[in-house]
Amino acid sequence: MILARIEGNVVATRKHPSLGGWRLLICQPIGPTGEPEGSPQVAIDAQGAGLHQRVIISSDGAAARVAVGDPKSPARWMVIGLVDELNPGAST
Amino acid sequence: MILARIEGNVVATRKHPSLGGWRLLICQPIGPTGEPEGSPQVAIDAQGAGLHQRVIISSDGAAARVAVGDPKSPARWMVIGLVDELNPGAST
Amino acid sequence: MILARIEGNVVATRKHPSLGGWRLLICQPIGPTGEPEGSPQVAIDAQGAGLHQRVIISSDGAAARVAVGDPKSPARWMVIGLVDELNPGAST
Amino acid sequence: MILARIEGNVVATRKHPSLGGWRLLICQPIGPTGEPEGSPQVAIDAQGAGLHQRVIISSDGAAARVAVGDPKSPARWMVIGLVDELNPGAST
Amino acid sequence: MILARIEGNVVATRKHPSLGGWRLLICQPIGPTGEPEGSPQVAIDAQGAGLHQRVIISSDGAAARVAVGDPKSPARWMVIGLVDELNPGAST
Repeated sequence: MILARIEGNVVATRKHPSLGGWRLLICQPIGPTGEPEGSPQVAIDAQGAGLHQRVIISSDGAAARVAVGDPKSPARWMVIGLVDELNPGAST
Repeated sequence: MILARIEGNVVATRKHPSLGGWRLLICQPIGPTGEPEGSPQVAIDAQGAGLHQRVIISSDGAAARVAVGDPKSPARWMVIGLVDELNPGAST
Repeated sequence: MILARIEGNVVATRKHPSLGGWRLLICQPIGPTGEPEGSPQVAIDAQGAGLHQRVIISSDGAAARVAVGDPKSPARWMVIGLVDELNPGAST
Repeated sequence: MILARIEGNVVATRKHPSLGGWRLLICQPIGPTGEPEGSPQVAIDAQGAGLHQRVIISSDGAAARVAVGDPKSPARWMVIGLVDELNPGAST
Repeated sequence: MILARIEGNVVATRKHPSLGGWRLLICQPIGPTGEPEGSPQVAIDAQGAGLHQRVIISSDGAAARVAVGDPKSPARWMVIGLVDELNPGAST
């Protein structure tokens, strides 16, 4: 799982049928203080993330196939949590 | 899943039998504004992507094995969507 | 498995149900002498890691799903050990 | 799947039994025009790749275990195709 | 699979039970001529690798779970071969 910020969306009319009806979000991985870290990923979202929302995304084929309800889906990255607070240095 | 642009193709006469009949496309990962991000990947394509087409590609062994119809296939990366619009900063 | 240091935590009220009750820790990968190596990951923790603790984390979907007790969980990174000593150059 | 060039071999007398009899090749990932891209990988080869041959390699544990005929094998990277032509910019 | 050099060990008293009794080695990935390539990994070892030994390591959850004898183990990286010779440019 990594931290990311929603940077926009992708429109793809022609796509794998299992992705029909899912928003495809451009997710920029970030560090604990919000700075960009590495390359953007495209994720499906069942949590209702908004633009510039900080999120946790995960890449797990098995879980994504369950989420979209299609055991043949190639979906992998998924928004799995909306970040309320990022606490670098916080007592955990 | 990542964004990529089709940069050309690969011809490989001698290859794993499960790849027979599949186009093998050179996919350059890109960011939201189209700039290159990281190293190219080779993907199979069932969506009909053309040269310089922006696409979404995914790396999922289970889904790729279903796509090529061979449970023993080593295929992984697959074109799973053709991008109509990339909307950095768009309300999602 | 990689070495990492706990750098803080993440609060996410809205998240995948399988993550309920789990601490979500920001883990900065480190090298043998403690220097940062690559991008931070978010991991669940069943070992009781404290702030700045050096840990071993692993990314294994199958094991994480067992740990959280939900075969549909998208959890992947997990703290799997607390480091007592890092011995670069030690006779192994 | 990525493009790579065969750069040499590795001799390992003591190894996981499932690797017995397999050539272990050093594969340097390359871009569409042959330039190095990222770190070398060690792959098994069932396609008969020669030195400096350009190949397609794939990292798929399930397929590699089938290839070596051992469901417990830790093999992952495998040469899955010999490249005849790399066509950057070719109509696909 | 990648080439690596053993750089030391990790002592972790508190860890996932499946890792009990296994040496945890710090493995620095290397290129064909021995130069460092990327970030260190922590691997379990059933081959008897010594300090500064060049090895082949693999990241395969399924195989690692078999190796440690625990289908719930989060172990992934494993030393799978001891390198006798690295032959960059050798006829393969």
